Amino acid sequence: MITRMSELFLRTLRDDPADAEVPSHKLLIRAGYIRQIGPGLYSWLPLGLRVLRRIERIVREEMVAIGAQEILFPALLPREPYETTNRWTEYGDTLFRLQDRRENDYLLGPTHEELFALTVKGEYSSYKDFPLILFQIQTKYRDEARPRAGILRGREFVMKDSYSFDIDEDGLKVAYQKHREAYQRIFDRLQVRYVIVSAVSGAMGGSASEEFLAESEVGEDTFVRCLESGYAANVEAVVTLAPEPKPIEGLPEPVVHDTPDTPTIATLVDWANSANLPQFAGREVTAADTLKNVMLKVRRPDSEEWELLAIGIPGDREVDDKRLAAALEPAEYQLLDDADFARHPFLVKGYIGPKALQANGVRYLVDPRVVTGTSWITGADQPGKHVVGLVAGRDFTPDGTIEAAEIRDGDPSPDGAGPLVSARGIEIGHIFQLGRKYTDAFNVDVLGEDGKPIRLIMGSYGIGVSRLVAVIAEQHHDELGLRWPSAVSPFDVHLVIANKDDAARAGAEELAADLDRLGLELLLDDRSASPGVKFKDAELLGVPWIVVVGRGWSKGVVELRNRFTGETREIPVDSAATEIASAVSGGA
Amino acid sequence: MITRMSELFLRTLRDDPADAEVPSHKLLIRAGYIRQIGPGLYSWLPLGLRVLRRIERIVREEMVAIGAQEILFPALLPREPYETTNRWTEYGDTLFRLQDRRENDYLLGPTHEELFALTVKGEYSSYKDFPLILFQIQTKYRDEARPRAGILRGREFVMKDSYSFDIDEDGLKVAYQKHREAYQRIFDRLQVRYVIVSAVSGAMGGSASEEFLAESEVGEDTFVRCLESGYAANVEAVVTLAPEPKPIEGLPEPVVHDTPDTPTIATLVDWANSANLPQFAGREVTAADTLKNVMLKVRRPDSEEWELLAIGIPGDREVDDKRLAAALEPAEYQLLDDADFARHPFLVKGYIGPKALQANGVRYLVDPRVVTGTSWITGADQPGKHVVGLVAGRDFTPDGTIEAAEIRDGDPSPDGAGPLVSARGIEIGHIFQLGRKYTDAFNVDVLGEDGKPIRLIMGSYGIGVSRLVAVIAEQHHDELGLRWPSAVSPFDVHLVIANKDDAARAGAEELAADLDRLGLELLLDDRSASPGVKFKDAELLGVPWIVVVGRGWSKGVVELRNRFTGETREIPVDSAATEIASAVSGGA
Repeated sequence: MITRMSELFLRTLRDDPADAEVPSHKLLIRAGYIRQIGPGLYSWLPLGLRVLRRIERIVREEMVAIGAQEILFPALLPREPYETTNRWTEYGDTLFRLQDRRENDYLLGPTHEELFALTVKGEYSSYKDFPLILFQIQTKYRDEARPRAGILRGREFVMKDSYSFDIDEDGLKVAYQKHREAYQRIFDRLQVRYVIVSAVSGAMGGSASEEFLAESEVGEDTFVRCLESGYAANVEAVVTLAPEPKPIEGLPEPVVHDTPDTPTIATLVDWANSANLPQFAGREVTAADTLKNVMLKVRRPDSEEWELLAIGIPGDREVDDKRLAAALEPAEYQLLDDADFARHPFLVKGYIGPKALQANGVRYLVDPRVVTGTSWITGADQPGKHVVGLVAGRDFTPDGTIEAAEIRDGDPSPDGAGPLVSARGIEIGHIFQLGRKYTDAFNVDVLGEDGKPIRLIMGSYGIGVSRLVAVIAEQHHDELGLRWPSAVSPFDVHLVIANKDDAARAGAEELAADLDRLGLELLLDDRSASPGVKFKDAELLGVPWIVVVGRGWSKGVVELRNRFTGETREIPVDSAATEIASAVSGGA
Repeated sequence: MITRMSELFLRTLRDDPADAEVPSHKLLIRAGYIRQIGPGLYSWLPLGLRVLRRIERIVREEMVAIGAQEILFPALLPREPYETTNRWTEYGDTLFRLQDRRENDYLLGPTHEELFALTVKGEYSSYKDFPLILFQIQTKYRDEARPRAGILRGREFVMKDSYSFDIDEDGLKVAYQKHREAYQRIFDRLQVRYVIVSAVSGAMGGSASEEFLAESEVGEDTFVRCLESGYAANVEAVVTLAPEPKPIEGLPEPVVHDTPDTPTIATLVDWANSANLPQFAGREVTAADTLKNVMLKVRRPDSEEWELLAIGIPGDREVDDKRLAAALEPAEYQLLDDADFARHPFLVKGYIGPKALQANGVRYLVDPRVVTGTSWITGADQPGKHVVGLVAGRDFTPDGTIEAAEIRDGDPSPDGAGPLVSARGIEIGHIFQLGRKYTDAFNVDVLGEDGKPIRLIMGSYGIGVSRLVAVIAEQHHDELGLRWPSAVSPFDVHLVIANKDDAARAGAEELAADLDRLGLELLLDDRSASPGVKFKDAELLGVPWIVVVGRGWSKGVVELRNRFTGETREIPVDSAATEIASAVSGGA
């Protein structure tokens, strides 16, 4: 089909919009792909909608290829199912809530686990009906605290969400693996550069949840990877490579020292280095030799009560809030305030040590590096006093370990293959072995071969479809504009008429008709604007193949430019249509 | 592509759902096309979604064919534009309103006139940019007071809404006509039986607004038509064919009579027939000889005050609330209550006449049949008294006419061609020469050829896309199930394996593969269920071509049934694939 620029609903902008910070946002606005309607709310103009639909189609094809069946739920949903799973409350301010004319509560769906679980419960009743994968490509709503970067983080967005239902763990693993491979095919077809990172640590097993992150400097997600082994993970998911336990025999007994004016790790280290401590003879004391104890209060979701929790980590590291939150989830936590300290006089602020914690029954979790046989400088539970040589496994015994300390570039990879380096990414996909959270909530059972009920096990899998428009723009642009991969470009060919001569115009129209007949989607710049304006627009819009009918016309040639690779060549008019078609089908 | 019933996410139901009243609702639930999630909220299961998408595609093709360009707006919209046009308030309880985390007001879009007008204002600035037609196929929200009949009137639904922008009335008329013809092509392709009815009367001209109504007994819209001329209109839009005025000379003077106990038209007619009135010598008095005066109070949208309004209509007709509301729009009205009558003692309940109304300055509108020279029995403004022979144009002069009386089967068509008959329909499309309401609200001007600003003129055009699924089901079904027209059927062919013999099964699989290779969308019933169960399901699902591999297999034939027409024939196995493909492409 031929789309004429003279009729296309499009006005490109010369200047970057004032509120746009990231390149994709600037370019998608300037090139007339999207327009802002409100904070985090965008309309799709003709070019943007074409890209969105092409991405949707690729996602759909690959989902159907793994046997997933498409259905479609409303976005407007009643409160009750989300009440049952507690997400009505848990989602907090991120959930758009509203009432209808009868004052019944509704929400705008952020994801649809509840509805899928209930629908399968409604239709299926036998083990024979499984495995089952259902998906939808649907508009979702989240009231983000900081909608940003255009459609990278909008409040209304298009998502592909799918859910697998199986009668056992093995089935779930198969569905998970199918999705993992389908996602790889999808992102490969879209020419997105991405990494797959472990998204949760320990408890559920390494492969239970992975994120697909598009590599991008403007990404909000930080991840780490080991270039030697290919290991990659969210910082929340990194498991600390703990040293081996050491023998306790022969270690000096702990000694309490007066350490006036040492409320911080830095002042404590200064004191230690000036104190000529025999343990450190011949080497400098560093913050890594100290153990700091961070006091929290923690509340479980099913409880009203806050419990004390102490976290011991080497003094050279900070607590990473995201890692801490992930480690404590689903419990919430707060730091202790002055009133809390006043209520617990055994907590001597700045000088808290393991002894008082354990004597008073405070739950005490430590960094995995605090293994048996390690010796620490830490608080002595009296103002102005620290203890030197307190040995884990002898002088104190933690209640367990916790992954709460920050990850740093150069830390060893959990697989031991080399150092970790950090990078930034944009989450484009998430696959998750969800388990029975939702089937338990709604008692989703089917009859097994033996006539006994089986509780179904679910996986949930998402792709940010509208976000991908921005992600691809973010990874594929230059200073002149967008550069779409062929698979998602709004058009196959952008034909620019840059010669006002009547014969050239007529020839260009003929070439356009030929390309149309060959099945190509064609954008024809038939405007009366100057060649310079047309070239600028062609570069901004980013269609991968640009054909120019220009000065060469009289010599019997047209120019074929590849916007994606930058190559340019002249081709004879006579064979232009077939040469262009073959270039297009060869890929950008 | 081959879809296997053994894997398809589908459970058909034997019984009608308890809450379903209309056939389409019952069948779409029973056949597993849709499921209810909440009042007026439905999920689309695989078969339903296939039909919805096929309808969308036909709508899209015909819109693109008239040069319309597709864009897509959010459903979640900020309050401000709707505040500007007053629709934030006017929509009343039908609008879903909500707040975000910052307590800013939002709505779920019921239609998008505001956003389209603002978007065109944002992009275009010259008369050269027009004509322009934009459209979207998008999810809309209306908090209906009585969601009913499944997806016939849902609260979340898919609509195609388009908007034309022109610099003059002639352009608008062209865009309107293009839409009218596109809609005819769409509904013809969908095999919907429909009529086009005038949707508003008089003031704006006959063609300014038309509705496409699908003929259906379960429709909520009543319309009338003249079988002789093809005239059709909403009852709100019917213009009464008024008689010619008559000469006044020679008509008897009015006489006031004691008419005790005649507060109703029926008692008044009885009295008149027993009173031997000279005017009616030789014929019976009927209710049509009386003039009843209905008292209302009316308030304009820009006013706080209620004004009295009297409506005089022949006593044999009731006021039609919808026609009255349409005639008074945008003003609202109420009937007078006892307190109102107490405040205006000149209104003698049951005996109100034109004299007291006009003497007290009450605005008085009459039915168009009350022409000059007609003589009436009506109230004499005293308890128990009526006047006989009160002549319009002599004894009282109305302030105008109003189309408020009911339309009855047999009434003359406005074009004089014959009698009107009424029918029921479902609104499936609406085309509307909107004018400048929205471009005035947002000052949408472009520069004309003379450099002066031109205020754009708009048309708005809608099709209820998801509703059409139910409308087609409503028009095409029988007692056994659905019967889809080929253009929208979820599959081209439903192949039933009704023979357990291994060779027959293998042959059916081979035939399925052949049909797949011929590009047909195939539903293959490969379940282990009995032939009876499979046939029932095939009839319920309603795919137009049903192929049965059954007992005939050993004789080398399969059965080809047309679910749409009911025809059945045997075809030889050897040529089955090509014969089926040719039957399918020939249409159902």
